[in-house]
Amino acid sequence: MPVFTAEQLREIGTKIFLAAGASREEAEWVSNLLVKANLVGHDSHGIIRVIQYVKAIQRGDINTNAKLEIVKETPSSALVDGNWGFGQVIAKKAMEIAVNKGRKSTVGTVCACNVYHVGRLADYTMMAAENDMIGVAMANSLRSVAAYGGVERLLSTGPLSYAFPCGGEFPFVLDIATSVVAEGKVRVALHKGEKLPEGCIIDKNGNTSTNPADYYDGGALLPLGGDSFGHKGFGIGLAVEVLSGILSMSGQSYLPNKKGNGLFFQAINIESFLPIDEFKRQVDTLVERTKSCKVRPGFSEILIPGEIEWRTERERLSKGIYLPDRTWEEIQAIASSYGLNLNTIINMG
Amino acid sequence: MPVFTAEQLREIGTKIFLAAGASREEAEWVSNLLVKANLVGHDSHGIIRVIQYVKAIQRGDINTNAKLEIVKETPSSALVDGNWGFGQVIAKKAMEIAVNKGRKSTVGTVCACNVYHVGRLADYTMMAAENDMIGVAMANSLRSVAAYGGVERLLSTGPLSYAFPCGGEFPFVLDIATSVVAEGKVRVALHKGEKLPEGCIIDKNGNTSTNPADYYDGGALLPLGGDSFGHKGFGIGLAVEVLSGILSMSGQSYLPNKKGNGLFFQAINIESFLPIDEFKRQVDTLVERTKSCKVRPGFSEILIPGEIEWRTERERLSKGIYLPDRTWEEIQAIASSYGLNLNTIINMG
Repeated sequence: MPVFTAEQLREIGTKIFLAAGASREEAEWVSNLLVKANLVGHDSHGIIRVIQYVKAIQRGDINTNAKLEIVKETPSSALVDGNWGFGQVIAKKAMEIAVNKGRKSTVGTVCACNVYHVGRLADYTMMAAENDMIGVAMANSLRSVAAYGGVERLLSTGPLSYAFPCGGEFPFVLDIATSVVAEGKVRVALHKGEKLPEGCIIDKNGNTSTNPADYYDGGALLPLGGDSFGHKGFGIGLAVEVLSGILSMSGQSYLPNKKGNGLFFQAINIESFLPIDEFKRQVDTLVERTKSCKVRPGFSEILIPGEIEWRTERERLSKGIYLPDRTWEEIQAIASSYGLNLNTIINMG
Repeated sequence: MPVFTAEQLREIGTKIFLAAGASREEAEWVSNLLVKANLVGHDSHGIIRVIQYVKAIQRGDINTNAKLEIVKETPSSALVDGNWGFGQVIAKKAMEIAVNKGRKSTVGTVCACNVYHVGRLADYTMMAAENDMIGVAMANSLRSVAAYGGVERLLSTGPLSYAFPCGGEFPFVLDIATSVVAEGKVRVALHKGEKLPEGCIIDKNGNTSTNPADYYDGGALLPLGGDSFGHKGFGIGLAVEVLSGILSMSGQSYLPNKKGNGLFFQAINIESFLPIDEFKRQVDTLVERTKSCKVRPGFSEILIPGEIEWRTERERLSKGIYLPDRTWEEIQAIASSYGLNLNTIINMG
């Protein structure tokens, strides 16, 4: 049950990526975002991904030192080709372009294709918010979600993120899958031997199931809204698919040979509508008003999107990040295969 | 049980609005959209609204002959003040501005404040789609939806619409409330003496209820996702609130004196990313692939957003539009108050 500091995990990730052929910029930035995911509590997108990414480099699915290429451009938009670079690096550059264009042209819109796994969309929408702009991000990916009323996997989990500048202590950032749950939740239930809540998945015949194994045996995730109102989640999922999959020329989620993420990013310049200070003041008021609502029976408090992640980050920055033994063993094995000894990093802590 | 042709209802609406002081442009356009709502099956947004709108004119909540004013403008954006004109008229002009700006600058973004009830957002996003652009629309309104975990009404139903150009026979247009159900559904259940499905509303104490009367007795709608996953619908609802309420300077939904709709509209020029024909071809392929999915037990077919409305419109164009007796009586009473005799219109049919 090893526990690490964020600094140690970043160092571990960086060393392994460098050994696998990544540039220092790539190795440090990707490690940084993976460890950020651990810090905020989304371990499924954390340092465990080093294992997947190194294998992807070895297979040629990730090109190290890839250059982002602008395929089509206007003063306020770009279609970019990531040339299968690290998703985190391409997505960061794509949002930088959106922010720069948005600053001059109110809304900067960037779509990206040929991008490997980008991780959490919140990392990119928050870049816009840190620049006093509204960040919008959508992505498509491998199929996992059934159509409303359908049996087979058709859409990806169609994640959607909005980040808003505000003056409060935690960032106001939404980052959700448009399915009832993301695949990571199903995997965690499977590994823990637990049942899923009703209405999250169907089995290969289209019957609802609470057994996570049924998902991996040809089942599918259900769109947000479940059996009665899933047309809404499915509709949003379709919108995400069109914007991030079709507009980006990334290939649609249902294609058997689909790889990586298609991206749709926007950065909206608030000052084109109202003064940023007034905007932030109003967002803060909305947050305060929300948190002051009377709490329903069965709930303990009302949370703003991004708040729970912020709290987990404070906690893990002080208490450290726990990795399951198996994850740590696999990371050590990959390091060894490159002749790296991670003990020097652990002992430095 | 009177049944009308669309043409008759448009004529009835136009005559009444003209008598109430609207310009011909306003009277015809608003009637047109109300009857369109009847045609596509959303009777709660149909000709019945004539009653509400005429009262709003009489109270001074709607200004007839109001001019849309541009408060702030860039080549790609505008903040507009509707001066409390008819929502349908202001929203149409706002989307026209977005389309014109988007055609030149890739993404046209228009926010609008001081706008009376605009009706269905799909009417405006489809304007963009008919111009070979992607339409995006969000609105805020009076509070009706609780925060996830909260008791009292905080947000509006936060409707959200996307329309995509395509080559198929029906338009691909999503238009949903981000609550589990819209208030109209609760009202219909109340009038029919029926129960609501589980997980749609809470009573004034925050307990879930299937009795529609509990909503009107101080209860609230629940955000999409219900008791277990409502943080997702609530998060999307908050994003809609910020974009359509705060960025538009419309006043937030929770304010006791909130009136009308705040609007956030975008028109996205597809040609800045890929040729429009290729985009439409891919959207059509997505639609076909979706509709060819194997259907789950308990479902009869898979529908695309906008498809059921299109079918209902075909049916009602041939069979006519039914109005409940009470609605027809109220419309006749309003007409009489202006000295209008609607029989001439009915008999012309």
